[in-house]
Amino acid sequence: MKELKGACIIGQSGGPTSVINASVAGAVETALKNENITKVYGANNGIVGILEDRLFDMGAEDPAELARLRNTPASALGSCRYKLKDSEVDDTDYKRILEIFKKYDVRYFFYNGGNDSMDTCNKVSKYMQKSGYECRIMGIPKTIDNDLFGTDHCPGFASAAKYIATSVAEISRDNKVYDLTSVIIFEIMGRNAGWLAASAALANDCDEGPDLVYLPEVPFSIEQFMSDIKAVSEKKQSIIVAVSEGIRDKDGKFISEYGSDLAQQKDAFGHSQMGGLAATLANMVKAETGFKTRGIELSLLQRCAAHSASQTDVDEAYMAGEAAVLRAVEGNTDMMIGFKRAEGKEYVCETFMLPLTEVANAEKTVPVEWINAEHNNVNEKFMEYALPLIAGEARPEYENGLPRFAKLAKVLAK
Amino acid sequence: MKELKGACIIGQSGGPTSVINASVAGAVETALKNENITKVYGANNGIVGILEDRLFDMGAEDPAELARLRNTPASALGSCRYKLKDSEVDDTDYKRILEIFKKYDVRYFFYNGGNDSMDTCNKVSKYMQKSGYECRIMGIPKTIDNDLFGTDHCPGFASAAKYIATSVAEISRDNKVYDLTSVIIFEIMGRNAGWLAASAALANDCDEGPDLVYLPEVPFSIEQFMSDIKAVSEKKQSIIVAVSEGIRDKDGKFISEYGSDLAQQKDAFGHSQMGGLAATLANMVKAETGFKTRGIELSLLQRCAAHSASQTDVDEAYMAGEAAVLRAVEGNTDMMIGFKRAEGKEYVCETFMLPLTEVANAEKTVPVEWINAEHNNVNEKFMEYALPLIAGEARPEYENGLPRFAKLAKVLAK
Repeated sequence: MKELKGACIIGQSGGPTSVINASVAGAVETALKNENITKVYGANNGIVGILEDRLFDMGAEDPAELARLRNTPASALGSCRYKLKDSEVDDTDYKRILEIFKKYDVRYFFYNGGNDSMDTCNKVSKYMQKSGYECRIMGIPKTIDNDLFGTDHCPGFASAAKYIATSVAEISRDNKVYDLTSVIIFEIMGRNAGWLAASAALANDCDEGPDLVYLPEVPFSIEQFMSDIKAVSEKKQSIIVAVSEGIRDKDGKFISEYGSDLAQQKDAFGHSQMGGLAATLANMVKAETGFKTRGIELSLLQRCAAHSASQTDVDEAYMAGEAAVLRAVEGNTDMMIGFKRAEGKEYVCETFMLPLTEVANAEKTVPVEWINAEHNNVNEKFMEYALPLIAGEARPEYENGLPRFAKLAKVLAK
Repeated sequence: MKELKGACIIGQSGGPTSVINASVAGAVETALKNENITKVYGANNGIVGILEDRLFDMGAEDPAELARLRNTPASALGSCRYKLKDSEVDDTDYKRILEIFKKYDVRYFFYNGGNDSMDTCNKVSKYMQKSGYECRIMGIPKTIDNDLFGTDHCPGFASAAKYIATSVAEISRDNKVYDLTSVIIFEIMGRNAGWLAASAALANDCDEGPDLVYLPEVPFSIEQFMSDIKAVSEKKQSIIVAVSEGIRDKDGKFISEYGSDLAQQKDAFGHSQMGGLAATLANMVKAETGFKTRGIELSLLQRCAAHSASQTDVDEAYMAGEAAVLRAVEGNTDMMIGFKRAEGKEYVCETFMLPLTEVANAEKTVPVEWINAEHNNVNEKFMEYALPLIAGEARPEYENGLPRFAKLAKVLAK
């Protein structure tokens, strides 16, 4: 191990999650205690905050507020969706980053994000190597979409999954109260990977799961969907459906685009058909079957419901931030922290490192073997994979009946 | 007190809530212990279950499952939206109800519901009096809408309010992560009464509340709304708006109907404008200002989120069910249990009784004095009223990371 002394920067990027701040808490608290790290900065709005010289002095924060980050949703440091150009094409941004790193003697850079953020992290890492500026760079994974390559799962996914399965279980109860056939269609995030829609099926573990689940990994057919609904309706009155926002037909056309086509038609009452994917499908089912239908879009709720987070997820997100700092101080760089399951029957999650180059821009989808033969649900393999991840209930402190989230001082570094 | 021995029926009616089963638990557990009550029945699907002779033997239930009803959302006995005709016009249903009451020697009838259910309860009560059949009849209030006349508040409202305020607080955090102006519009239940949309403002208590709140109690103007949004955007980037689904313009036209009109127009990209009220307003704001916008409909989530219920609400819902049985056994009839606040600074909730005739079909809306002069938010009076109601966090048991709700045996009475 070669000792390297200097400051560190921690940044957050991409869409927030319920536990992305737990990773920041893990990284910041670990870095503040480390002898080799002279100063701990938080980048305001990710890489943009570095380019614009907006760094927070994390050592100036109240430790009690840092501790509250574990249960505070959304990116407390601010996020961005800024894409770095290839340094061969335009190295303006890279020069500026290097300038800021030198200005603050930054020798450690931790970037907390999903696919695009790991691409940014990888590019910065490669540029620093080329420039001969010694800086250890580590990616900390996060994404509710769970689509990062090489890691068993991603921090953020499990809390979204727990919220989705809980909401499906609750609404499934609600949908049974009247003596009539009623179809509820949940629209769940996930453009290319169906991990979150699949998570609705976890509610089957408490007998309140969806009857039908459709993922973007396999083609969706309206005809088959109608036939599936009718088949379920012959057995029961309450029908629960979960669909990924990204489901596509066999020609690759998003089903959500069917909505705009339909909007130009009128229903029997002269109203235009309206709405997003869930509403579009609900309207179609109603027109075809006459059943009571309702579309529910879980929208942003699913990615920031810290009040119903998975304790396993919170702990692992913290562990990922902590591991990034410890591994970097030990001499590693150019890596992302990943998760793997320890051997044995009990679920135990361990961290490991994988090269940023391998992770950047690769996408992990739900294995087709985890989807049933009819392509309208997931099977036991998915349940075995996902159930341990949602174990335990993490909750913020409450004050006057409402969550008391972290309030950071956000003191700008000079 | 005149002693009356006989069986009782408990029924649930109208839209479910997170705590309507807590009232059933209170009534059933109290009735099972009472010496004057010989048998405890649950009506399957409310009054319809009585008409169709579908009564559950509640004494056959596992007490542990009955206890779990406190934290189980939706109507465990099943609900209905059946409107009894006036008995002067058609007394078929009433004769049938009397027949069933006689068959099972029913001397106590408890009906758990909102406005329409209290109307049903009142009609049955008056008919039994007219028939000379001795049966004590009590209404147990429930409605997330909080619009029942004569009671300080209704069981079910506070848990919905807590869920709404919590979700608004979480999404408010999420909406701040990017360095751009972003408008989120929440569509919240409440056709004529704005209690639930007003509850979004409770999140102000943790500094994450909405900037603008619009209730159906005062007229809504699109022009004023746009002007309000622009005024807020001059001060901050994250803009949170809460609207009742029932907001209307000065001519009484629902703003939600503006959507169908708009759906026939096309936006700059040739797409039709689509969606419910939240999406309609979000599209309008985007077209007018260019800001990033998103509409979020809280839909059924707000009425069944038992995982985030108010402990105060759960306790009071239980107390209302318990009080209905105790007051009836004491000799009272033809009443609804209401809530009032005890004198003094501390919040203490007490039950009292008010005549069913007074409650039936009357509707309580948010006092206009609790709405600010600009008609775009509520004031401190609403906060003082509602904050004590959401105190305490009630939660179901969890098994494998998911809620373990009550599973009733539902043994049909012979």
